[in-house]
Amino acid sequence: MVPTVGLKVPLVDDGDGTALLTDQYELTMLQAALRSGTAGRRSVFEVFARSLPAGRRYGVVAGVGRLLDAIEAFRFEAAELEFLAANGIVDEPTLRWLEKYRFTGNVWGYAEGDCYFPESPILVVEGTFGEAVLLETLALSVLNHDCAIASAASRMVQAAQGRPIIEMGSRRTHERAAVAAARAAYVAGFSTTSNLEAGRLYGVPTAGTSAHSFSLLHDSERHAFEAQLASLGDGTTLLVDTYDVERAVRTAVELAGPPLGAVRIDSGDLGVMARRVRAQLDSLGAHDTRIVVTGDLDEFGIAALAAAPVDGYGVGTALVTGSGAPTASLIYKLVARADSPDEDAPMRPVAKRSPGKPSRGGRKTAIRRIDGHGTAFSETISTGEAMPGQRDRLLHVPLVRNGDIVGREPLGSARERHARSVAELPTTAIQLSKGEPAVPTEFVQGGPRP
Amino acid sequence: MVPTVGLKVPLVDDGDGTALLTDQYELTMLQAALRSGTAGRRSVFEVFARSLPAGRRYGVVAGVGRLLDAIEAFRFEAAELEFLAANGIVDEPTLRWLEKYRFTGNVWGYAEGDCYFPESPILVVEGTFGEAVLLETLALSVLNHDCAIASAASRMVQAAQGRPIIEMGSRRTHERAAVAAARAAYVAGFSTTSNLEAGRLYGVPTAGTSAHSFSLLHDSERHAFEAQLASLGDGTTLLVDTYDVERAVRTAVELAGPPLGAVRIDSGDLGVMARRVRAQLDSLGAHDTRIVVTGDLDEFGIAALAAAPVDGYGVGTALVTGSGAPTASLIYKLVARADSPDEDAPMRPVAKRSPGKPSRGGRKTAIRRIDGHGTAFSETISTGEAMPGQRDRLLHVPLVRNGDIVGREPLGSARERHARSVAELPTTAIQLSKGEPAVPTEFVQGGPRP
Repeated sequence: MVPTVGLKVPLVDDGDGTALLTDQYELTMLQAALRSGTAGRRSVFEVFARSLPAGRRYGVVAGVGRLLDAIEAFRFEAAELEFLAANGIVDEPTLRWLEKYRFTGNVWGYAEGDCYFPESPILVVEGTFGEAVLLETLALSVLNHDCAIASAASRMVQAAQGRPIIEMGSRRTHERAAVAAARAAYVAGFSTTSNLEAGRLYGVPTAGTSAHSFSLLHDSERHAFEAQLASLGDGTTLLVDTYDVERAVRTAVELAGPPLGAVRIDSGDLGVMARRVRAQLDSLGAHDTRIVVTGDLDEFGIAALAAAPVDGYGVGTALVTGSGAPTASLIYKLVARADSPDEDAPMRPVAKRSPGKPSRGGRKTAIRRIDGHGTAFSETISTGEAMPGQRDRLLHVPLVRNGDIVGREPLGSARERHARSVAELPTTAIQLSKGEPAVPTEFVQGGPRP
Repeated sequence: MVPTVGLKVPLVDDGDGTALLTDQYELTMLQAALRSGTAGRRSVFEVFARSLPAGRRYGVVAGVGRLLDAIEAFRFEAAELEFLAANGIVDEPTLRWLEKYRFTGNVWGYAEGDCYFPESPILVVEGTFGEAVLLETLALSVLNHDCAIASAASRMVQAAQGRPIIEMGSRRTHERAAVAAARAAYVAGFSTTSNLEAGRLYGVPTAGTSAHSFSLLHDSERHAFEAQLASLGDGTTLLVDTYDVERAVRTAVELAGPPLGAVRIDSGDLGVMARRVRAQLDSLGAHDTRIVVTGDLDEFGIAALAAAPVDGYGVGTALVTGSGAPTASLIYKLVARADSPDEDAPMRPVAKRSPGKPSRGGRKTAIRRIDGHGTAFSETISTGEAMPGQRDRLLHVPLVRNGDIVGREPLGSARERHARSVAELPTTAIQLSKGEPAVPTEFVQGGPRP
């Protein structure tokens, strides 16, 4: 799309612009700062959570790759500028500034898939105040959503103890959030998703066979099974709880024989049903036919089925709603800024003093300290130079350098990193019960950064 | 975008296609039904919730306008077809069917903004099985999200008793869900949103002035206030809790005088602070300066401030997360289908018998029965012809007729309808305490529809 400010162009939703996924106050602050001469002051904003959702042991960083795409698409083009002008949201000088806007600063962050803890500075944005303040809402939206989903997903993956989980919650959340949720769940260790757009956009493996409506469409369950087997092959998963599970399993094995891939149970007491169906399948010689259970599962429901003969789980609502914590409560705070717009003006730590919501001034570095057994024992945050020991991990990686995206990576890398990051935590991390963060956050006063 | 199946085109995200915002099993069911000859059977699917979120008195229908846009954009074009082909998700005959896909059926639904109750058939989709099953995930995603948000928003609006509420939760939810949330909140009676894209796409009035970072950017709070007043005028809202509220209010009135538009308090005990600030403003002669409070408010927090001198509320997290109920638990169920693909084959009611999840077969009509005082007393659902009394309201309106969208309306109409719909409910509806639905759902057996 070519910017054509001054010309009237139709206001179409081009669908990929991200510049207005923003709270109005960022633009009014920009306008006021441009006028007061402070918009050019070098500034550092940090993203962190004051606490984890009640009782959670760790959080999971997700959405980093999506955020980088969104920053790249953050441009004020004709549609955006015309809206702002027509509604008098900002003045002429600000419109001219926005027209040329392109983020030229630097971003560091925790790598996608890594774990985080209270106060972990998971994103650091450095630029002029004007260019950095504009990214506040977008950065928080992406990270608050994706981290919430990945944090819940990771607990489910731990509860499943190696059994695969399919993500199938698209219908229970906003249609685009569903795509991001599928991606975040995959980072956290889910095997597949039902969401096709997540397959197309992000390469997440997709899965899915049939619903109850398919059985109801046909003149009998037998007809429905025959139709599905004829089209999708014996390796498919047949849904067996539309009418009577025992009869359905008998019909399924009669039609497909032992090569039948799997049966799915979506209702009733899943543990009891799984045992009965396993015994029935075995008695029919279908020893290799797997049992997949779905139906309002969350991490606790999955854990309760650990001893049941279940070969895979499907999780929907609990995943896309963050299993009780639908947002990660991450905030975006100005922690340092220059005294003048000069490029080499010294940086000054800043912090608000609002009751109950204090912030810590100064740009932070973060280290995960690792003991001789390879286990994390401290999230060490410092306003000075990071001083990692030999085994410790420096947590920030470069994501954007002078406006260029440098932090892209394949999604599989984030998924592998997450598995390593959880494995490195103390064993308390994978307890589902409520408790303290698995690793304590410790603040170290440091000298000024060089 | 021109479909160019057969040619290799780059897989770009054109951003407005909706056909892959779908669970894979809809496509595999389509494939199997095409093969078994059942895909062309006329079918009726209904969207309803088995229950409201625990203790809620009513739900609010929202997202209808968004769903109509999404249905119109539901086409399998080059990018979608190539993904499906490359990943072997469906076979060649299905790809050819999808390429020509366009929904040609009918959709009726509760009008946007109307209230709903357990089992209310808020959407009825009629078409061939193939064309109607494909809309399952998309319809549920849009409605589950938007209804959840609007249902929470409506309670907040009732609690605010006429005081305006600004929606400011964008940062706490997925970046595109945020836009839909702002729209749903407006339908439910919120005054404004901070989300600029909701302003551009849907015409929701936008608002916003400044954050704490603006005060921290400047050398003093006084400088920050001067900058904001110079740029945005005396009618702006100054944020007064960055350092010390009393000093900030004094400075604010000193600089702007009594014409100061408003002050915003974002932390502390909002009721106590509002009383102190009101007294201080009055003592300084700023009788018309309004007080806006924000900071983790939900419907209960708003209600608790009813007696405080507050002129407006800002609500973020609680709004975009549905205040404890982030999804509306709506489901999409096949309730009737023909015995053959013949256009005039008789329709047969169908229902599954899964334990705990039974469904009622047959296409439904719905009436809100209204007594002589204009108060609703029954949600009457029938599988026969609707027989409304003189005061009763027939709840279904036509949304799509033979594939053509006929149900579009200005967003303001939905907002006005919602206000009327809530006003018509018994007064128990606006109690925030947990309880039964404000209007009981009653099933009436009816004869066959003509």
